[in-house]
Amino acid sequence: MLALVLDPDPRLVTDRPPPVRAPGEALVRVRVAGVCDTDLQLARGYMGFSGVPGHEFVGEVVAADEPRWLGRRVVADINAGCGACDDCRTGQGHHCATRTVLGIRGRAGAFAELVAVPERCLVAVPDAVSDELAVFAEPLAAALHVLDEVDPGRPGRAVVLGDGKLGLLIARALAGAGVATTLIGRHAHKLALARAGGVTTALADALPAGVGGAPLVVEVTGSAEGLATALALVAPRGTVVVKTTVAGPITVDLAPVVIHELRLVGSRCGDLARAIGALARGEVDPRPLIEARYPLARAVEALAHAGRRGALKVLVEG
Amino acid sequence: MLALVLDPDPRLVTDRPPPVRAPGEALVRVRVAGVCDTDLQLARGYMGFSGVPGHEFVGEVVAADEPRWLGRRVVADINAGCGACDDCRTGQGHHCATRTVLGIRGRAGAFAELVAVPERCLVAVPDAVSDELAVFAEPLAAALHVLDEVDPGRPGRAVVLGDGKLGLLIARALAGAGVATTLIGRHAHKLALARAGGVTTALADALPAGVGGAPLVVEVTGSAEGLATALALVAPRGTVVVKTTVAGPITVDLAPVVIHELRLVGSRCGDLARAIGALARGEVDPRPLIEARYPLARAVEALAHAGRRGALKVLVEG
Repeated sequence: MLALVLDPDPRLVTDRPPPVRAPGEALVRVRVAGVCDTDLQLARGYMGFSGVPGHEFVGEVVAADEPRWLGRRVVADINAGCGACDDCRTGQGHHCATRTVLGIRGRAGAFAELVAVPERCLVAVPDAVSDELAVFAEPLAAALHVLDEVDPGRPGRAVVLGDGKLGLLIARALAGAGVATTLIGRHAHKLALARAGGVTTALADALPAGVGGAPLVVEVTGSAEGLATALALVAPRGTVVVKTTVAGPITVDLAPVVIHELRLVGSRCGDLARAIGALARGEVDPRPLIEARYPLARAVEALAHAGRRGALKVLVEG
Repeated sequence: MLALVLDPDPRLVTDRPPPVRAPGEALVRVRVAGVCDTDLQLARGYMGFSGVPGHEFVGEVVAADEPRWLGRRVVADINAGCGACDDCRTGQGHHCATRTVLGIRGRAGAFAELVAVPERCLVAVPDAVSDELAVFAEPLAAALHVLDEVDPGRPGRAVVLGDGKLGLLIARALAGAGVATTLIGRHAHKLALARAGGVTTALADALPAGVGGAPLVVEVTGSAEGLATALALVAPRGTVVVKTTVAGPITVDLAPVVIHELRLVGSRCGDLARAIGALARGEVDPRPLIEARYPLARAVEALAHAGRRGALKVLVEG
């Protein structure tokens, strides 16, 4: 089959064998897949991954153990826990030590005609949610996870640091939940997009007075320096949600964490069903983030496009 | 009056003028004061403090605006907020930007015959709580604050990293609340004390199998390296309470915070009334931590004693 592979440089192959469906797994024909910054990092050698990347997708089930899945449009939780360990048994399969992660760790991903996924990871997509909405389910799930740090009785205000794709999604999700949200970034065209989604914006090098002292700050800059800025902008006893993963040690002054009694909350993946629900109810519309579409046969170009500075969401269509 | 002063070296003076009681303040005759590691840091120049240190104390009110305080034994919240700003009005006086902190910032402390304290900071000490118990109210309040991170329905288990005075208090407080607690330290005699308080212990350089994966880790080592150890011992989605303040930047790999979706919670001061309540009900007995007592006239010796490696609580009696 046609597939994009990393070893680690990306190249297209036409003779990739289709994935073998293990017991309990579904075979899914990919309809649309999204390029994530993690894919670009994998292409630079992150995680030592080789094979087919791609973990944001929507597709149609063509084979499965459970007949109810056949022909269904689906998205999938990318973390496939073993299903048997203590973590998996207590609902913490995202942290199973032997888990595979779709297109990231030990499991071929979605930049291919077909992908195999454990059936317990599948989430059905209702007809009302189009492919171009559903393909955002995985990053939107991660974005919505941030809402768990908002007091529903007192939504208050939040600052999102970083105007990348995930930062834009998080800012929209917070604004959609009634939180007065300020997005701080470095790209005027992205900030303009955020404003169209009901978000206040500011350029990182020209912060207005009063933006600090926020009860909630989301650090999604992708840079090692972002955390220090977040610690400077959060109010005493406030929360910093940390989305940026920096490989290796960073140097940072953490004294404010104790002195101001802050909470730092690491946040990685979210609940796909929650994301599909939010999309079905129209609570978040991520489509303005789509910048380009490529057929799978041009997936190498799609990755190159996504790697341009300031690029938004690039989709690969099966 | 007799007082210990730092400038920054500690010396005893006999001619210190008694503190002037401002409106709303009480004048308190100090009965017993405890030496804290912060006092030792102040003597090394921390915070640029000069004057009378000492913030752990119990005393007797000799002058006050409100007659009900006269003659009462009291302890006091060390953070004196302005009482007027947004933080103070919303119960966050501990974080008032212009607050004074007893014996630490802008306010003379308790290693003296008399100390002035805002009446709104006072907490009355019931007769059942002796001076040697009450003098622990301030550090015990900080220790009990850690209990807020324990799910009361599922106390589970915790690891306390660091067998200093505060680590010992926190371990006792956790064990007293039904949490299966392991204290990890470097001093055999302190670990023995902890075991007498119902705490399991381990030497830092000989950690037994199974100590990791704890849902709650309290980092109170006082060292820059403690956080990395805490991050290695906490379970996915677990909480690290950070009590150690390291002045200036540290170098640490924070990727586990995101990957394992951890919570880091900075914790500084606690609620003095809660501590007095716990002492009155006998829930925690900190007295085994008392290592030595000195009269105020020998306060310089008391500080030197407290600064010895492995020293426990040193009291200064008025």
